[in-house]
Amino acid sequence: MRIPLDLQSAVPLYRQIECYLRQNILSGDLLPETRLPSTRQLAESLGISRITVTNAYAELESNGLIYSQEGSGTYVMAPVSPSLPLEDEADISWPLWQQDVHVSEKLSQSVYPVQLSQRASHPDPISFTGVGDPRQFPLKDFYKAIQTVIQRDGITALDYGPFDEGYRPLRETISHILASQGIRANPDNTLITSGSQQALALVCQLLLKPGDAILVEKPSYNFALALFKALNLKIIGVPVDAWGMQVEHVETLLQQHHPKLLYTIPNFQNPTGMCLSGARRRELVVLANRYNVPILEDDFAGDLRYEGRAQPAIKALDLNGSVIYVGTFSKMLMPGLRVGFLVADGPIFGQLVDYKRVNDLTTSTLIQRGLDEYVTVGRYQAHLRRSCRIYRKRRDAMILAINRYLPPDVQVNPPQGGLFVWLRLPENISSLKLLPVAAEQGVEFAQGGIFFLNCSEGEAYARLNFATQTPEDIEQGIQRLGRALRRLMMAP
Amino acid sequence: MRIPLDLQSAVPLYRQIECYLRQNILSGDLLPETRLPSTRQLAESLGISRITVTNAYAELESNGLIYSQEGSGTYVMAPVSPSLPLEDEADISWPLWQQDVHVSEKLSQSVYPVQLSQRASHPDPISFTGVGDPRQFPLKDFYKAIQTVIQRDGITALDYGPFDEGYRPLRETISHILASQGIRANPDNTLITSGSQQALALVCQLLLKPGDAILVEKPSYNFALALFKALNLKIIGVPVDAWGMQVEHVETLLQQHHPKLLYTIPNFQNPTGMCLSGARRRELVVLANRYNVPILEDDFAGDLRYEGRAQPAIKALDLNGSVIYVGTFSKMLMPGLRVGFLVADGPIFGQLVDYKRVNDLTTSTLIQRGLDEYVTVGRYQAHLRRSCRIYRKRRDAMILAINRYLPPDVQVNPPQGGLFVWLRLPENISSLKLLPVAAEQGVEFAQGGIFFLNCSEGEAYARLNFATQTPEDIEQGIQRLGRALRRLMMAP
Repeated sequence: MRIPLDLQSAVPLYRQIECYLRQNILSGDLLPETRLPSTRQLAESLGISRITVTNAYAELESNGLIYSQEGSGTYVMAPVSPSLPLEDEADISWPLWQQDVHVSEKLSQSVYPVQLSQRASHPDPISFTGVGDPRQFPLKDFYKAIQTVIQRDGITALDYGPFDEGYRPLRETISHILASQGIRANPDNTLITSGSQQALALVCQLLLKPGDAILVEKPSYNFALALFKALNLKIIGVPVDAWGMQVEHVETLLQQHHPKLLYTIPNFQNPTGMCLSGARRRELVVLANRYNVPILEDDFAGDLRYEGRAQPAIKALDLNGSVIYVGTFSKMLMPGLRVGFLVADGPIFGQLVDYKRVNDLTTSTLIQRGLDEYVTVGRYQAHLRRSCRIYRKRRDAMILAINRYLPPDVQVNPPQGGLFVWLRLPENISSLKLLPVAAEQGVEFAQGGIFFLNCSEGEAYARLNFATQTPEDIEQGIQRLGRALRRLMMAP
Repeated sequence: MRIPLDLQSAVPLYRQIECYLRQNILSGDLLPETRLPSTRQLAESLGISRITVTNAYAELESNGLIYSQEGSGTYVMAPVSPSLPLEDEADISWPLWQQDVHVSEKLSQSVYPVQLSQRASHPDPISFTGVGDPRQFPLKDFYKAIQTVIQRDGITALDYGPFDEGYRPLRETISHILASQGIRANPDNTLITSGSQQALALVCQLLLKPGDAILVEKPSYNFALALFKALNLKIIGVPVDAWGMQVEHVETLLQQHHPKLLYTIPNFQNPTGMCLSGARRRELVVLANRYNVPILEDDFAGDLRYEGRAQPAIKALDLNGSVIYVGTFSKMLMPGLRVGFLVADGPIFGQLVDYKRVNDLTTSTLIQRGLDEYVTVGRYQAHLRRSCRIYRKRRDAMILAINRYLPPDVQVNPPQGGLFVWLRLPENISSLKLLPVAAEQGVEFAQGGIFFLNCSEGEAYARLNFATQTPEDIEQGIQRLGRALRRLMMAP
């Protein structure tokens, strides 16, 4: 036990030990029944005489903070008094350097969903937030896979892998899955990351420095915006319409702001659910090459198409390594695994592997092996077909319910796939104001503001995830939303 | 299937489809027996006429690249010709932006261990590299824990947790373990990270910008150096002696370089194995406050003490949030889990949580829950006692063998704990030159150079991990090292 002792101090050593232990016991840091080292052990490890420790223990015991049991040792007693309150942070004067770094937090808070205390107020709220439906996650099968891996690989399954691009068989599986989706990749330019979020973070850390400009869709994925803000990037928004990012504006913005990166979610965009048209994809690649700007393609749910014409990945149109492609298993399989991947060509790839290494050495080998054991191309395709079938019904149910239960001046553009429906609320209705009223009615959604650099621009919007609820609950939830809207519209 | 089609192109569409699939089949990206979408499906998803797809398939089938089975569908044939070689990267002219970011890679390569082709040359090499002994990892128990978690928590075990400091019960367990080690912490200032490497990365990303100076021990942990280099930090080394970092030099360096961070491994330092004296710890805290510099304390193996007097954690001497404490389960339990943690007080903590979030949202919830299920204070203490008993024997065996089998002018300073012995080689012997000769003899170690900013400064040193091998193999391995040394010394 490492107790800080000050040999120079006027306070006798036994008293220092006693105070230290007393504080930790009263604060609850030292759990009741925790066994303390013997007086001999502690004296030895602190390099002091045994009698000093004995005195300290005696003091504590007489205060009823510890008790000793013949032969078995000394133990912490359950504190009778309520545990010591933590010192009020306001009282402490933090070092100056701490105050300097206190800015970007406030910034990025704005892109996190508001936490509602009202949530409790409704017995069973229906939530249109979150990602895919957990009930679809193949838990049992994945568990079997972990079992197989541990039996097959033994301790190597829990050792560090090599600190490289990731577990090779998994990279091979991924490139085969991508090929079956029409995206050219191979294990040697595929890097396993801790979720697609880490892939975005690595690319930004490598390619941008504070103050650099980045081009993004407006609105865009809130945790990507949070990342860009945390890195103090200059975020330039390109408006989105029914065909995705309005690429016709991009060239001017490239000339004005000289961005170092172009971030796009071309398929079933988060939050709007729209897809970038084929013509715009080609135009984007042309511009990227003309202006020497890399494209970061976030294909978080590109496979979840329920109808309409599939567009090639931007990466598939890229001939010379201008596009970095990012994918994930979170939406399709299990978010909690935190496994994503990126595909990049050229010298940049080795750099990204390097950044991955210095960021967290490697992603859990057990999870990588388990995932590879579970995922096969065939299985993935089957799971994908099944998910599409289920989610398509839910999208239809939501669009139907919206038309039936929401005021006519609510605008919605039905997505051809993905997870999200993007609502434009009636005139003068703020989604932030709607949030608590809706919560009272028992329905939750993501307020539009978190998807904009400037929250107020998103006031008029709400993002609804249709994939997480059954058609029945969707109808139910939209009815509740309708009630909430009318209540707010009638309010003075 | 998303096949890139160019409607403007002179190449007929069926030919474009055919070429695309041919390329993917020959390259092996499309696995043999992969089922292709039906002509109807593909035509629909590409928004073209079915006959076009039929023509493309017919072409491929007549070339023996795919085959169709009555009723069941069309499948990829195993390619008879060897798979298509990837285009030679030299032929491709990468975009300019890729060439700009091509520097730091070479930099950080120098801190990674040399990969030896010679390794193969010896039938059973004995390795003194790596971390703890995998054979000590409690695999079965941990597997049981995962089992329990999945049965108890069901799908929530694989869903995202809340994107916060980490699974709270685990944070509670960690703070209790730290308390039992004499380090004051509580769940509200403890952040779960993906290994301690991520904790270091988060702190650096938050507190330093490219060009900022950082004070580190010289030599220091190679992956920390890799991180600092990747972030383009100005690395200032403070020499280490038998009592750890020579703090008497620190004040001058603080005045000269105004570093933004002070990184130290106070216990059983990596690579030297030395411990920072109590007086120096206090002095360091005083300086940190006087010069307004945060201390990053990396306590990767502080519990693994085999003898001698335990020193308090620097964090335990810190009164006002000047010290950020980093720990890990990798060395004690299972490296592959990738679970570490940091303890920080003051506003900085919220910032670090924020950075963790934007970096990878959260660490695998399954692993966090499994670890919490497995780790209890009592169990940890027991595992710790056991590890200390085993590793102590191995350290003794290595010191004994070094004195017995290595040339007398090899210098070593026996560590009181941890994992590493730091050898100073005889005059004019380079550890880099020794490496291949040792590999031939069947023994591996980490060459000193990787722990220095300037590799050549480490030429005279070798780091040996005694924790990974049995006493018998240690004796065997050191004998081999002795042979290698003599061979090199006798070489002209």
